[in-house]
Amino acid sequence: MSQEKVTVFKIGGNIIDDAQALQSFIQQLSTIKGLKILVHGGGKLATSLATTLGIQQEMIEGRRVTDEATLRVVTMVYAGLVNKNIVALLQANKVNAIGLCGADANLIPAVKRPLKNGIDYGFVGDVSSCLVGEKWQLFLENGLMPVMAPITHDGQGQLLNTNADTIANEVAVVLSKYYKVSLIYVFEKKGVLLDAQDDDSVISAITPTYYQTLKSQNIIFAGMIPKLDNAFDALSRGVSKVTIGLASELSLLTAGTAGTTIIHE
Amino acid sequence: MSQEKVTVFKIGGNIIDDAQALQSFIQQLSTIKGLKILVHGGGKLATSLATTLGIQQEMIEGRRVTDEATLRVVTMVYAGLVNKNIVALLQANKVNAIGLCGADANLIPAVKRPLKNGIDYGFVGDVSSCLVGEKWQLFLENGLMPVMAPITHDGQGQLLNTNADTIANEVAVVLSKYYKVSLIYVFEKKGVLLDAQDDDSVISAITPTYYQTLKSQNIIFAGMIPKLDNAFDALSRGVSKVTIGLASELSLLTAGTAGTTIIHE
Repeated sequence: MSQEKVTVFKIGGNIIDDAQALQSFIQQLSTIKGLKILVHGGGKLATSLATTLGIQQEMIEGRRVTDEATLRVVTMVYAGLVNKNIVALLQANKVNAIGLCGADANLIPAVKRPLKNGIDYGFVGDVSSCLVGEKWQLFLENGLMPVMAPITHDGQGQLLNTNADTIANEVAVVLSKYYKVSLIYVFEKKGVLLDAQDDDSVISAITPTYYQTLKSQNIIFAGMIPKLDNAFDALSRGVSKVTIGLASELSLLTAGTAGTTIIHE
Repeated sequence: MSQEKVTVFKIGGNIIDDAQALQSFIQQLSTIKGLKILVHGGGKLATSLATTLGIQQEMIEGRRVTDEATLRVVTMVYAGLVNKNIVALLQANKVNAIGLCGADANLIPAVKRPLKNGIDYGFVGDVSSCLVGEKWQLFLENGLMPVMAPITHDGQGQLLNTNADTIANEVAVVLSKYYKVSLIYVFEKKGVLLDAQDDDSVISAITPTYYQTLKSQNIIFAGMIPKLDNAFDALSRGVSKVTIGLASELSLLTAGTAGTTIIHE
């Protein structure tokens, strides 16, 4: 096993929707050394385009139900507009980025989500266990930085809308076979907070045992739980380190001196 | 110089706008052996989306004037919707396609078109002379088939709308340094016609001298002239063969038994 390092970065809507924050994030990202992958979500652009086009959006438990018209919108916005603008910005900062979705080079095979408790999420894809690392290596080892839009495919010609956090997780896990992988989730807080009202009460490290304690005390709740469950899942499947924190502190997050780090006991 | 062959295919709106024609084209393309690149245009989808969004489209001499709102639309439609659907179809036909635009891997550096006779085409890019073959080789020689959307970038963070015929030409020319390159322009006729009223009057081969004769007799006129000028330009800069013909005859075009072939004397 090579000890070369790869860092997988995940950004969401709060940065993508803010041109200045995005530009500043990209500049910081460009200065970080080593092999890198960026996974991005979509932000409000898809919802606002769908609204303008008169396509009604249905959300179930924070997940977008993806009918055919919505799939067209997210394919346009995520894999087209957002992805290519990020690539152009990275190129302007001398990073040789390559913008891709999961159908490209069959990077992320997926399976259309089956009905769950009677809920049909439509054209939503779950990452398939057929995900392999070979083509990712080809890009990384030839000086290319993959920038991934959260669109995948079923191998039968059908594109699928896929959760970007899950993509970041699964890609980090599969690359752990070849590299020492760090996963950095950029979000809207400095890290996991001990006191939700105090933005500076960042918990610097969380182990599985401490996580159970924090949950039992209701210090960690709601939207944070799936994010941390994902992080511990990645850790248990080979990822070296998962960090959660602010985009504006990216260099510190990468250095391990800011944000919350998810670690083994 | 390697004698390995590469074929660059160019398809336009008439196929992209017709789901059945596109599917049939992709199936044929999948059966063609050897290294391949597909360059696609955009079709009517961009115009119809722009209309729905209330963005007025201005055309000057058949070229779209690309203001900021239009650039967003073509980036979404060409690099997102059209590109990724073609990739998913190719993947379903067991071709390991990778959908890209010119910003990705800095594949097609471009220059924003300067004012010409007082006409400002907006965010339109002309392919830069900095275009190189190295990254194209990386993809081709690792079993990947590039599928190119006609969006490029200026290296300073600005995406640009670029003519797909020109992209096909320039890519074919740059790859001629490494491979024996054929360029196939798929369009809505069986080839260049001796009699515009007779679809079967295909001229099977045109040399530069014959081209001058055909033009002087007004047998070739209007939209055909820039297409053929492009073809002779590619030929003079190293491309082995340029063929023009019908999508439904793709296998025959590739074999050289249908369409019009542009050749040296």
